[in-house]
Amino acid sequence: MRCQSNNELEALVEEAKQQTKYGKVADYIPALADADEDKLSVALYYPDGRCYSAGDTAENFTLQSISKVLTLALALMDRGEEYVFDHVGQEPTGDPFNSIAKLETNKPSKPLNPMINAGALAITHMIVGESVEDRLQRLLSFIRKLSGNPSITYNQIIAQSELETGHLNRSLCYFMKQHGVIDEPVEELMDLYTKQCAIEMNCLDLARVGCVLAMDGADPVTGEQIIPWDIARICKTFMVTCGMYNASGEFAIKVGIPAKSGVAGGVMGSLPRKCGIAICGPALDDKGNSIAGIKLLEMMSKKYSLSMF
Amino acid sequence: MRCQSNNELEALVEEAKQQTKYGKVADYIPALADADEDKLSVALYYPDGRCYSAGDTAENFTLQSISKVLTLALALMDRGEEYVFDHVGQEPTGDPFNSIAKLETNKPSKPLNPMINAGALAITHMIVGESVEDRLQRLLSFIRKLSGNPSITYNQIIAQSELETGHLNRSLCYFMKQHGVIDEPVEELMDLYTKQCAIEMNCLDLARVGCVLAMDGADPVTGEQIIPWDIARICKTFMVTCGMYNASGEFAIKVGIPAKSGVAGGVMGSLPRKCGIAICGPALDDKGNSIAGIKLLEMMSKKYSLSMF
Amino acid sequence: MRCQSNNELEALVEEAKQQTKYGKVADYIPALADADEDKLSVALYYPDGRCYSAGDTAENFTLQSISKVLTLALALMDRGEEYVFDHVGQEPTGDPFNSIAKLETNKPSKPLNPMINAGALAITHMIVGESVEDRLQRLLSFIRKLSGNPSITYNQIIAQSELETGHLNRSLCYFMKQHGVIDEPVEELMDLYTKQCAIEMNCLDLARVGCVLAMDGADPVTGEQIIPWDIARICKTFMVTCGMYNASGEFAIKVGIPAKSGVAGGVMGSLPRKCGIAICGPALDDKGNSIAGIKLLEMMSKKYSLSMF
Amino acid sequence: MRCQSNNELEALVEEAKQQTKYGKVADYIPALADADEDKLSVALYYPDGRCYSAGDTAENFTLQSISKVLTLALALMDRGEEYVFDHVGQEPTGDPFNSIAKLETNKPSKPLNPMINAGALAITHMIVGESVEDRLQRLLSFIRKLSGNPSITYNQIIAQSELETGHLNRSLCYFMKQHGVIDEPVEELMDLYTKQCAIEMNCLDLARVGCVLAMDGADPVTGEQIIPWDIARICKTFMVTCGMYNASGEFAIKVGIPAKSGVAGGVMGSLPRKCGIAICGPALDDKGNSIAGIKLLEMMSKKYSLSMF
Repeated sequence: MRCQSNNELEALVEEAKQQTKYGKVADYIPALADADEDKLSVALYYPDGRCYSAGDTAENFTLQSISKVLTLALALMDRGEEYVFDHVGQEPTGDPFNSIAKLETNKPSKPLNPMINAGALAITHMIVGESVEDRLQRLLSFIRKLSGNPSITYNQIIAQSELETGHLNRSLCYFMKQHGVIDEPVEELMDLYTKQCAIEMNCLDLARVGCVLAMDGADPVTGEQIIPWDIARICKTFMVTCGMYNASGEFAIKVGIPAKSGVAGGVMGSLPRKCGIAICGPALDDKGNSIAGIKLLEMMSKKYSLSMF
Repeated sequence: MRCQSNNELEALVEEAKQQTKYGKVADYIPALADADEDKLSVALYYPDGRCYSAGDTAENFTLQSISKVLTLALALMDRGEEYVFDHVGQEPTGDPFNSIAKLETNKPSKPLNPMINAGALAITHMIVGESVEDRLQRLLSFIRKLSGNPSITYNQIIAQSELETGHLNRSLCYFMKQHGVIDEPVEELMDLYTKQCAIEMNCLDLARVGCVLAMDGADPVTGEQIIPWDIARICKTFMVTCGMYNASGEFAIKVGIPAKSGVAGGVMGSLPRKCGIAICGPALDDKGNSIAGIKLLEMMSKKYSLSMF
Repeated sequence: MRCQSNNELEALVEEAKQQTKYGKVADYIPALADADEDKLSVALYYPDGRCYSAGDTAENFTLQSISKVLTLALALMDRGEEYVFDHVGQEPTGDPFNSIAKLETNKPSKPLNPMINAGALAITHMIVGESVEDRLQRLLSFIRKLSGNPSITYNQIIAQSELETGHLNRSLCYFMKQHGVIDEPVEELMDLYTKQCAIEMNCLDLARVGCVLAMDGADPVTGEQIIPWDIARICKTFMVTCGMYNASGEFAIKVGIPAKSGVAGGVMGSLPRKCGIAICGPALDDKGNSIAGIKLLEMMSKKYSLSMF
Repeated sequence: MRCQSNNELEALVEEAKQQTKYGKVADYIPALADADEDKLSVALYYPDGRCYSAGDTAENFTLQSISKVLTLALALMDRGEEYVFDHVGQEPTGDPFNSIAKLETNKPSKPLNPMINAGALAITHMIVGESVEDRLQRLLSFIRKLSGNPSITYNQIIAQSELETGHLNRSLCYFMKQHGVIDEPVEELMDLYTKQCAIEMNCLDLARVGCVLAMDGADPVTGEQIIPWDIARICKTFMVTCGMYNASGEFAIKVGIPAKSGVAGGVMGSLPRKCGIAICGPALDDKGNSIAGIKLLEMMSKKYSLSMF
């Protein structure tokens, strides 16, 4: 069953919104702590171009960990599947996204997957370019194409805030540098990574990105193959096995949609051959996922029979 | 694209079989060590009743860990979703299937998911019945229904062999008993669990079981709802996130079919609304999955476009 | 400086006793939960036979983990240093005494030291004898000799209580059985181990045992060499590096006396060539050591300059 | 029994030297890889000023981890016992000296002890001074006093080499910075730490430092109390429980002398109220300790009855 109107989504948003009071806004990145924690918005993008939405869909939010899916796609296009998975694993983990312990216990040291911070940093390291600026521009231009929005850029204040406070990510980087997983200067990688995480867009943009992934990498409007289909498939697979931090298993059971969340409260969903979804709800649960966003996706999954399984 | 003939599968089996020389038969269970490690067989069961196969499909093998999916279904039917997931988690793990470390570090102690040994033992503990014998008969009768084969039973020699050597599983049981995850006598649970793992059938039987799960729990022949659809969905989801031990992530990317493997070399696949698959190839890779079986599934996934993602 | 009178010790006991209110009696072994948590007693045994004491020194308590030192001595006498340390390590650990995680991560699996439960079980496994009963009698007769008290035996109620509830120790045993560290039936080892832990004596007895170890294994009265001097030395070394659970480092700094504690509240100290000490105070701190006992030892160490360092 | 002549030591050195062929020189710090791995030298310093030695005792080597004991003493003098142990633990660990896993699993995050790298970095962070240069000068002047050698300084080439390659230490620093254990700029701390590790002296100097610690902090010649006695005691205690990396337990049993090793092959021993010992033998065993040095200490411990236990 397909969604027929914005009203349907508005009703679901109203109900899901009640969850916001049980969550709280990410505060470990100072610039994120100001977000309005009662908000919830959603956009649903069908491949035929129809789009439904509810909430304040014009408001921008930063991608944060959602960007990990997009840098993975670009790195796979830049380097090929074999190279990428020689350096970063493919297995989900029961550990938190910022954990360093497995980097030490796994021999040889290799991040478990591209969705935890260590793996994402190693993936960003692979993006080709002459300089940090050049690599950032390549990434931005890739994301502008995916979203169909040429004005997308990153939030400088948030990028700067994350650069100043991201000591745990620096710790992961130096650990990987010691073990040869990365070899560029850590501060350059941190510069690129924090800007990547601070790329911002609104729900309409993000739902379109989700739809491109859903449609095997093809632009739903022009039909242009922006991402090779097998790379789009790999991205969606990781979204199922490790897209929602260490609540991915539960999410797959309750919702069953390939999805990736970020600590700014965003979630991007990509239902194969069906639709793209974007949600923003800054109040997070204890795993770091949008608490109302997950509730909303659960309700949408039931109402529109969206589970893949 | 659908498979059209046994010949197609035979050609794939011939090619995949070359992998057997890189694997080896499980030897930690003495009674399994005698299996012929060069063998490979496959069956593909479509909901319309058509079934294609290749290799020695009449030969029985024990389910081993494949049985974990079926006890999960029965426990969910016996106890309900809430009870089951209060005692066993839903998250994949990067640790080996028989690991005990996470039972200690997770607070409160709770097996991470029903597909690792600790979780599977806790699930078997939940199967309702007056006695071990009664619970075993309920499980057998459930599996006979799923396979459409009323003569299915367990292999006594293998069950006995596993009972005698299963000290690691006993260690997991006592750890869980200490923490209140299970409360029956450990030897009774071990008795039931080793018999469950030793249930045997051939590829044709198992492909039909896979097809029931694929068809949301409905018998493909009679249409009878053997498993409620949402429980069938939960089973398939776990098969994706943790069905292939700690190679589940890589398998989801390369193959993209919900599947569960066992150390006797069996693999059961359940492609939602499409088909059931069964494979038996006793030579295992270092993660404990059928080495030629995985290769064969990879080839089938490409040839017939089976990936869900 | 030496202690000159019981009065001196009584004054120290009075002050240290105030700590009891911050601790609590071990409750995971039901039969221990009845101990009077306000009590504190001490005995100080000099090699010249002079003995000072304070508190209710006639009262028996079970040795619990203190017995680990004595089985280690007997196993070293039975099997030799090389055999013992081929099967059990010599390194302290930052993990709790009942932890199983390191058994899994260390390759090959080997308990880190004889003072954690896993190591102590492996040591008890090494005690030579025709049967559990025979091995128990050998151990009892060894301990009677060390204490000079031929009536010492074990508390049957406490042994039984620990046998019924010791599932974590069973978990450790089966894990070690899987890895070949032990090979006897687990229930037999558990039977012997719980009886060993339930051996009881009073502070006067235990201080004499401590004095034998202090005097390099020689009976302070008869001069008989009960334990070879190098084995007595090994025991005292383990008491320093891992005798006080994972508070051993702090205890070495604050007190500086080789000592071993038990969850019944006992502590045995052995100051090389100086004296034996025994304390009983059932209220435990969060590491499992007698809270007032540690305070008392700290005060005694300062007053009588007992630190070895 | 005391050593009577250089000849005695020379005989022991000749025998112990045969072990060098089973070890290898540290190669993870490029500037250390050039050391002559067949060498072995020793000095034994008695409080009455008599000193015996063997081997090339005029040759300088860098202290590396031996410096951790000396910065601990200075930090305790600068900040007091309470402050220091609020930030760094006192427990030995079974993990390697450069492990990061326990920093993550311990809550709150706190290095386990001052002898592992994380703890040593946190201790160096505590040394008081206006600037890195000022703190370094204070440390150097402290060490010159301890050794009685006013010309002691650090090796600039080795310090620089360690600064360039010390990514694992940077990883530890940033992890601790994230958790508030340290708050200075990481590169400043790394600058000071690598210079501290590169401080060099010969065996005669180092044996005298060991003797000061042995004599409760008093200069054996002038009697001046360079280190308060209780701080000297704390240092020796850590040398026993965690001075020889994760072979400390075995070393305490085999040798029984408070000692600290470094990856340049140095070992400093401090036998309470007896003597100071220094050894240099660059070939290391797999734990990072001088392989011939340990053998030599074992032989000396037996010959001169040096074990404390």
